[in-house]
Amino acid sequence: MLRLGVDVGGTFIKAGVVDETCTILHKVSVPTGGDAGYEAMVLHIAHAAELAAREAGLTMKDIASVGIGIPGLMNQQTGVVVSAPNLAGWRDVPFRTAIQKLLPVPVYVGNDANCAVVGETMAGAAKGYTNVVMLTLGTGVGGGIIADGRLFVGGRGLGAELGHMVLKMDGEPCGCGLRGCIEAYCSVTSLVKQTLRAMDTNPDSAMHEYARTAGLVDGRTAFECSKMGDKAAIKVVEDYCRYLSNAIGSLIIVFRPDVVLIGGGLSNQREYLMDKINAQLPNYVFASDIISVPPVLRATLGNDAGTIGAAFLDKM
Amino acid sequence: MLRLGVDVGGTFIKAGVVDETCTILHKVSVPTGGDAGYEAMVLHIAHAAELAAREAGLTMKDIASVGIGIPGLMNQQTGVVVSAPNLAGWRDVPFRTAIQKLLPVPVYVGNDANCAVVGETMAGAAKGYTNVVMLTLGTGVGGGIIADGRLFVGGRGLGAELGHMVLKMDGEPCGCGLRGCIEAYCSVTSLVKQTLRAMDTNPDSAMHEYARTAGLVDGRTAFECSKMGDKAAIKVVEDYCRYLSNAIGSLIIVFRPDVVLIGGGLSNQREYLMDKINAQLPNYVFASDIISVPPVLRATLGNDAGTIGAAFLDKM
Repeated sequence: MLRLGVDVGGTFIKAGVVDETCTILHKVSVPTGGDAGYEAMVLHIAHAAELAAREAGLTMKDIASVGIGIPGLMNQQTGVVVSAPNLAGWRDVPFRTAIQKLLPVPVYVGNDANCAVVGETMAGAAKGYTNVVMLTLGTGVGGGIIADGRLFVGGRGLGAELGHMVLKMDGEPCGCGLRGCIEAYCSVTSLVKQTLRAMDTNPDSAMHEYARTAGLVDGRTAFECSKMGDKAAIKVVEDYCRYLSNAIGSLIIVFRPDVVLIGGGLSNQREYLMDKINAQLPNYVFASDIISVPPVLRATLGNDAGTIGAAFLDKM
Repeated sequence: MLRLGVDVGGTFIKAGVVDETCTILHKVSVPTGGDAGYEAMVLHIAHAAELAAREAGLTMKDIASVGIGIPGLMNQQTGVVVSAPNLAGWRDVPFRTAIQKLLPVPVYVGNDANCAVVGETMAGAAKGYTNVVMLTLGTGVGGGIIADGRLFVGGRGLGAELGHMVLKMDGEPCGCGLRGCIEAYCSVTSLVKQTLRAMDTNPDSAMHEYARTAGLVDGRTAFECSKMGDKAAIKVVEDYCRYLSNAIGSLIIVFRPDVVLIGGGLSNQREYLMDKINAQLPNYVFASDIISVPPVLRATLGNDAGTIGAAFLDKM
């Protein structure tokens, strides 16, 4: 049984043919084409799915279902994308109805961060676990939850926006308009802000030279200079890990997952990040003296998590 | 079909015979007897259930099942109460196995805050809703969640401890040992601390006279003086409502309930509290401009919520 998984991003649509073992047999990537408007983008998504099948030597008759991950808020009851700022500002568009008309097999739709946790649970770092929390640390902070073996999406599928849970009341402003969100402390964007602030107040920090050589300040600046022993960078990383540990601790108290996954750009720091988080996490978990604290692991599927997870939305 | 619901508290065990319409036909209250030890308390619980049936003119043959709510952390997979500080410090006790041996009908066990949300959803303020979040604001802050019509308890039933989610990183110390928990800002205990601080810095506040007359400072002091126009009290209430709104906002972002319920002692402030929360809640909810914010309502069953909810644990 073959499925198609489609991961719609702001710039590219990735579509893959996925088999029962969660292997991507063939994948394609086509431009999202946001400037052409909503109707054209829906066509592009359908074409990407068909192209992946065709290039794999298949027709849509060989495909059992198509799953599509969207970077936005989606009402799972109606299939309406309520808001997708990265898709040329889609707002209240009847996406599932529209895309189903273009494809001859059952179509399932979901949020992209939710697809990622499905993929990692089917085939990645959380394989075999029935309770999983995943944070994707990138430009923003995406969240996905598997509870009792099923995707947890909240009422009408609009919940589980873990990046906008409060971490610090009255704290840093967040891009969403609220203050103190997890995203305002734990996204790569926030880490860069924290890094720039530390550079401002520490003109002797090695981060200046590192950034000049790299040509930019990004999520790696503080981490790489911290590894070289730069004091200001070490402080940035320490603070960042404290923010992230506190956020993860709060999520554990609500969901009691068997495992917590970290995906997105920052997960490239691998054990350097995970070890620090795992070491201090018990300080931020209720009753950690009597209930074991789950391990925090790096997601392993990278960009494929979204494609594989989308393909298996029908099972969630 | 009749069920027994048992609400075990630190001081009293309340047991009631509940019919299909969620009406309590008869109820009893007996001392928990914490000083007699775990085994004796288990016997008291079984006896309370049988007493409620007998006094209602029934035998256990007339009862389909017994549901029991416990004020503590319970592993739903094993029925082990991991920790119950209010029950003479129960820790890792095989409660479900022990109580099932004493009763001739199927026994279901759960956390007391979870029973309360089940009761309110079956028969109280959330009747008819399928996604509900309830906060019980008392000495601590208890939490209960109905998601897609079912009780949501997290992995092994150990989750949904909403009172210990973080509200303000590095904030007020909480009784649980962590800092900045929702409970550390929103419990009655915390409100009393906030009230005492305001009284300290405002010797002219009407709260002093109010407390002298009442003989104590409690959760009503600031609220009642606020209603009389006392500036310091108004500030305490304003701050408290901001904390609570921010906490509820964060929960909405995760669970997207149809309704949020407030139970416990503070819910006696009724519309004076609910109106303030509902008015400012949109300021603390992600995407409140495009997704409607659910109403915050007062729980209506009071102490009966736990008994009714326990009785219906078998349906959750």
